[in-house]
Amino acid sequence: MQHFFTLQTTSGNARAGIIRTPHGPILTPVFMPVGTIGSVKAMSPHELEEGNAQIILGNTYHLYLRPGHELIREAGGLHRFISWQHPMLTDSGGFQVMSLAALRRITKEGVRFQSHIDGSYHLFTPESVIGIQEALGADIIMSFDECPPYPATREYVEKSLRLTLKWAARGKEAFRNQERQALFGIVQGGVYEDLREHSARKLMEMDFDGYSIGGLAVGESKPDMLRITAFMHDILPMDKPRYLMGVGTPADLLRNIANGVDMFDCVMPTRNARKGSIFTRYGKMIIKAARYKQDFKSIDPLCNCYTCRHFSRAYIRHLITMNEILGMRLTTIHSLYFYQELMQMARQAILENRYQQFMDEMLPLVDSMVE
Amino acid sequence: MQHFFTLQTTSGNARAGIIRTPHGPILTPVFMPVGTIGSVKAMSPHELEEGNAQIILGNTYHLYLRPGHELIREAGGLHRFISWQHPMLTDSGGFQVMSLAALRRITKEGVRFQSHIDGSYHLFTPESVIGIQEALGADIIMSFDECPPYPATREYVEKSLRLTLKWAARGKEAFRNQERQALFGIVQGGVYEDLREHSARKLMEMDFDGYSIGGLAVGESKPDMLRITAFMHDILPMDKPRYLMGVGTPADLLRNIANGVDMFDCVMPTRNARKGSIFTRYGKMIIKAARYKQDFKSIDPLCNCYTCRHFSRAYIRHLITMNEILGMRLTTIHSLYFYQELMQMARQAILENRYQQFMDEMLPLVDSMVE
Repeated sequence: MQHFFTLQTTSGNARAGIIRTPHGPILTPVFMPVGTIGSVKAMSPHELEEGNAQIILGNTYHLYLRPGHELIREAGGLHRFISWQHPMLTDSGGFQVMSLAALRRITKEGVRFQSHIDGSYHLFTPESVIGIQEALGADIIMSFDECPPYPATREYVEKSLRLTLKWAARGKEAFRNQERQALFGIVQGGVYEDLREHSARKLMEMDFDGYSIGGLAVGESKPDMLRITAFMHDILPMDKPRYLMGVGTPADLLRNIANGVDMFDCVMPTRNARKGSIFTRYGKMIIKAARYKQDFKSIDPLCNCYTCRHFSRAYIRHLITMNEILGMRLTTIHSLYFYQELMQMARQAILENRYQQFMDEMLPLVDSMVE
Repeated sequence: MQHFFTLQTTSGNARAGIIRTPHGPILTPVFMPVGTIGSVKAMSPHELEEGNAQIILGNTYHLYLRPGHELIREAGGLHRFISWQHPMLTDSGGFQVMSLAALRRITKEGVRFQSHIDGSYHLFTPESVIGIQEALGADIIMSFDECPPYPATREYVEKSLRLTLKWAARGKEAFRNQERQALFGIVQGGVYEDLREHSARKLMEMDFDGYSIGGLAVGESKPDMLRITAFMHDILPMDKPRYLMGVGTPADLLRNIANGVDMFDCVMPTRNARKGSIFTRYGKMIIKAARYKQDFKSIDPLCNCYTCRHFSRAYIRHLITMNEILGMRLTTIHSLYFYQELMQMARQAILENRYQQFMDEMLPLVDSMVE
């Protein structure tokens, strides 16, 4: 896609940029809420807009199985089907095939697997995954990858990587929709720097619109994750966006922005929120805790989200304790709002070339528990 | 409460009126969405407003048990606790004690019962139930009643009724908050007209702000229900609102409006919606049905609710099938919107003195299944 990404400025290795899509621009660094099967859980599109989400993610594996990409094509694409007018990204399905599907058999052709829902047999190939994502019609799509589990031997990762590189080439070859979609290659290679470098250089030869860092946040240590993203920064091109898949906590985001990552997605803010674990600028808040029972302040008295403007900790605690849907909605609204605000603050700090200082101030806060 | 109710006009026995409360007026006939434990399930206060809800209901029994009326008093009352600025009504707890609580023992003093949650012992008396409802602070509250199950012998109902009348007198005596709350007496008497008449006349002597018709919608036939409400119309005073508790389907509402009922509440539109059974002006729609799989029309193409303005049957079917919270939200929004619209149309028809004709036109529609 032409003029897809502009790097505006850097602060250390942290980057502020603009991604341009047919559904509007995205200011980076950006966090993408996850709309697994066509809905960011508990949220309406309207609430996502109010919460300043710029782009949301859909999962190719899930949407392929239900309701099916052909149905979504018939609906006019995923944007129309779910009534979301802003940018979207779909993943490759590689991670879900690894983590969810049963009896997966990897061949040169692709992956044959059984659905985690009904055990039916399916085949994902690099070409079919591009085809599915063209039907879904997201603005940013991923080439198919084999995502090694963690831990995996160097031999496994190396072999897997060779396959993923061949699949990337085949996917790129099959990709026809350059006018409307940007295609990212996924860097694999586990925690092995030489394999990561090989993966990145081969993908860069194929010239993708952006580069995803896959195969992290699968169980490795945080230092390993940060070591790899720092290493990737020196190799990946400056003029293409970098997307760290499936990451993470507020602290993970801040630290990986410092390593030059532009894009993130994670179910953590939404999934944790539904269980009453809420992210705030003062740390994590476990709203079911007894000390919030008679606490009539909002989650964050300085926050401007719908939840904090209208509802008390005591009420939200009551709702979450009672398993009321509204409770899950209100905690999700706040956590997503906070994630977006954190990204906006990070971007501002980069634009003002004070990212390191910003991060040093924020980390002790977001890494703690609310008193 | 002074100037609480004004009967504006009648059409046959159907009535259009205005109820005035400290939180604003209510145009009748009115349907009240049920916010059992402090939230109309799946809805935010903002969505209820957008859906034209004038007044919502809270359940005394549930709120007393969790989070407790003292907590809500401390929060500044139920309105503030749940962030609802418009009128509210709380029920007496009598129905829930009958239908939910374990091991209830009825004495002259009141009802001793075990919580359906943790088996703890509690005592509801006419005085304590008024006290709880004063703490909750709803605009309209109910005197404590013994709600006989159905079927019940005439002897049981007669004995129960005598108790309920004594409790009504004691509740009225204990009630102090006349400036801010309206107190309704609950007419009991099962399906026995003479007992209903006795109940109503005794309550009318006590001069309540309004009269609830309790003990219906508990299992009796629809003709029995309608026979009783028609009978009540001839006895209850014209200048006080009548509230038929726990009713019902759109057809039930239309038929009972014709019998002079002003107020309704029911969990049916919200509970059914969460399971994918949706009320529309063309009848009931079971959204999981296979024929909606590729149906990209909205639930009701003429409806102006948030759901119908943005989402297709196919998408909602997908969400409900996948048990996604957004699916339950969207169906609830539509069903509540339709209920409010039906009440607005009924009121307009009464004001224009064509209620019978309106009902005759609507009944075959709302009583059917969507094709």
